[in-house]
Amino acid sequence: MEIGLIGLGKMGYNLALNLMENKHNVVAFDVNKEAVKKISGEGAVGAESISALVKKLSTPRIVWVMVPSGSITEQVVEELKDELAEGDIVIDGGNSHYKDSIQRGKELAEKGIHFFDAGTSGGMAGAREGACMMVGGDREVFSTIELVFRDINVDNGYLYAGKIGSGHFLKMIHNGIEYGMMQAIAEGFEVLEKSDFDFDYEKVARVWNNGSVIRSWLMELTENAFSKDPKLDSIKGIMHSSGEGKWTIETALELQTAMPVTALSLMMRYRSLEEDTFTGKVVAALRNEFGGHAVETK
Amino acid sequence: MEIGLIGLGKMGYNLALNLMENKHNVVAFDVNKEAVKKISGEGAVGAESISALVKKLSTPRIVWVMVPSGSITEQVVEELKDELAEGDIVIDGGNSHYKDSIQRGKELAEKGIHFFDAGTSGGMAGAREGACMMVGGDREVFSTIELVFRDINVDNGYLYAGKIGSGHFLKMIHNGIEYGMMQAIAEGFEVLEKSDFDFDYEKVARVWNNGSVIRSWLMELTENAFSKDPKLDSIKGIMHSSGEGKWTIETALELQTAMPVTALSLMMRYRSLEEDTFTGKVVAALRNEFGGHAVETK
Repeated sequence: MEIGLIGLGKMGYNLALNLMENKHNVVAFDVNKEAVKKISGEGAVGAESISALVKKLSTPRIVWVMVPSGSITEQVVEELKDELAEGDIVIDGGNSHYKDSIQRGKELAEKGIHFFDAGTSGGMAGAREGACMMVGGDREVFSTIELVFRDINVDNGYLYAGKIGSGHFLKMIHNGIEYGMMQAIAEGFEVLEKSDFDFDYEKVARVWNNGSVIRSWLMELTENAFSKDPKLDSIKGIMHSSGEGKWTIETALELQTAMPVTALSLMMRYRSLEEDTFTGKVVAALRNEFGGHAVETK
Repeated sequence: MEIGLIGLGKMGYNLALNLMENKHNVVAFDVNKEAVKKISGEGAVGAESISALVKKLSTPRIVWVMVPSGSITEQVVEELKDELAEGDIVIDGGNSHYKDSIQRGKELAEKGIHFFDAGTSGGMAGAREGACMMVGGDREVFSTIELVFRDINVDNGYLYAGKIGSGHFLKMIHNGIEYGMMQAIAEGFEVLEKSDFDFDYEKVARVWNNGSVIRSWLMELTENAFSKDPKLDSIKGIMHSSGEGKWTIETALELQTAMPVTALSLMMRYRSLEEDTFTGKVVAALRNEFGGHAVETK
């Protein structure tokens, strides 16, 4: 099929290669002209603007948006709403909030443009070699583009998840689970490191990847990380987050649902961003107030 | 090699079959005579007692203990200490506490008997088809029995982990990680269930197992569970625990190590055992005391 692809970053560029390897034609645009030039060298048709990209596509047009979530996605979808026509299709493959996707779906529907929210997992390697996608949108229209999802994902690696929003909702929850799994793995290695045994963490991760209950892709990545740096001496334990864990907990609060371990995983990330905490100061001060316990002064 | 196997329960019986399939000779004892008879029918030599089992083995004897942890393991190892001689080998493949294993290693060493603590993961299927084992004990003596571990585990599925205790320590931490991973996965599905989307959980688990970051054996088991019972309507959400999670947290406390998510995963299991909580009553009473907020009475 012919796909207009907007966004040639880490994910989008690899997705373009993946699409072309699967015999799909790609018309690509990115604000970074170098990326457009580079992907043209790989066989894509380059476009100088969103408007130019739309003009190069035959109808019904399929436009895949693979840009950072938030205002950039918003701008791109707004522009597409102006440029596209009834029957065209917009797929947001980024990490948009599912509520934004529901809203965008409504706005595009006003012009008869179909919208799909495709939550994407598997990282850059997945985008290139075969990803995992959860897709929300109209089921009938989905059947007209399903072939593309079958081609660019691993076997059984895509799911038509339901109405608009369901794809990004699933991806959000996937990331919430990821936070908890990662924190659990990490806490296990924390105790190993504090113990008086002398473990080789790469070997520990390897044996846990072969036949154990906790074997997983994340444990394989753990093995990889320790193979490069046996005690992770070269990095700091600062855990950034890109927002989906926060959205998961906000959603849990909205739904008044208990997900304590996921929430705590998120908050341990926030804690890791601070060298010292005000919490710590308050508790130390109170222990001093009531019990005369020593505080550590600056 | 020739292995004396004590314990023919779910794990031991499958281990016996696994050993024999790999051309090892098994002399087996269990308090359950039926199990001994059954495994004899599969090619093992049956023994009527631990003493009889020991007499049937040629020296240096290798005795694999696969019985419930705690007092039963304690009794078996005590008896073996009396029956075995210098140079013999005892392997505890059960879920013993690593401190008990260290103590047992010391006691057996008084008679020159070598002790190995082999933490075993992978469940019954693993015991039968290829497990994952973390083994602590003397490195040189380990090399004399390593072949057995190579045969009965999956590829790269065993690790000589270090001194006595290290095997069961690793298994304990493995189980702690398992608690956290399971709770994280479960909380994700909890939000899906509370949301107003209409997800097919088997399909969700399947897509998450193919190309996603959270693909794992536990997610495969999740897929299996939902394939049999789409909403798990037939079971209650009561989460028992068999002790290793508790030991993990006790160890974290001893080492004054923060593993909040693992601790909370354990406590959510305890919470699940209670229909109502005293905590709940106290909070409800206090809200009523200070704010006149309604309480629900019996």
